[in-house]
Amino acid sequence: MDYIEIIGLIAAVLTTTAFLPQVYKTWKTKDVESFSLPMFLIFFIGILFWLIYGVLVKSIAMILANSITVISSFLLLYFKIKYGKR
Amino acid sequence: MDYIEIIGLIAAVLTTTAFLPQVYKTWKTKDVESFSLPMFLIFFIGILFWLIYGVLVKSIAMILANSITVISSFLLLYFKIKYGKR
Repeated sequence: MDYIEIIGLIAAVLTTTAFLPQVYKTWKTKDVESFSLPMFLIFFIGILFWLIYGVLVKSIAMILANSITVISSFLLLYFKIKYGKR
Repeated sequence: MDYIEIIGLIAAVLTTTAFLPQVYKTWKTKDVESFSLPMFLIFFIGILFWLIYGVLVKSIAMILANSITVISSFLLLYFKIKYGKR
């Protein structure tokens, strides 16, 4: 693997793991007021597209990273809908 | 441009624009309590790596998308530090 792919892998790991502390904090605090629902909706759909793109270009790194991010962004979307103000 | 690249472009546009309503909401409300600071830090660094990766692989779409997301994630990081509890 050349250094460019390593940079891509670091980027994928960082932007995937970034959401885990947020999912944990939101799960614990149920505090979703600061979040923008449109952001989570658009972001979730966007990550789904990245996942499809990763499958089509047969990129294991993209499939792995975006499968995890699809789950964490879906959870955040679910928390926002469940705990957001009625 | 084949359909696979179109899916990649749609994904890039969605995951880039997704942050704009969040930046707007946070700029207006100054409410950052729900956010996890580690998320913004890790995410910002990760997007920087994606930007470097995009430059190295000479992908205009990645450079464009990640330049915008670097700015929006930096703004959210700045707001979180500025308006977060001391």
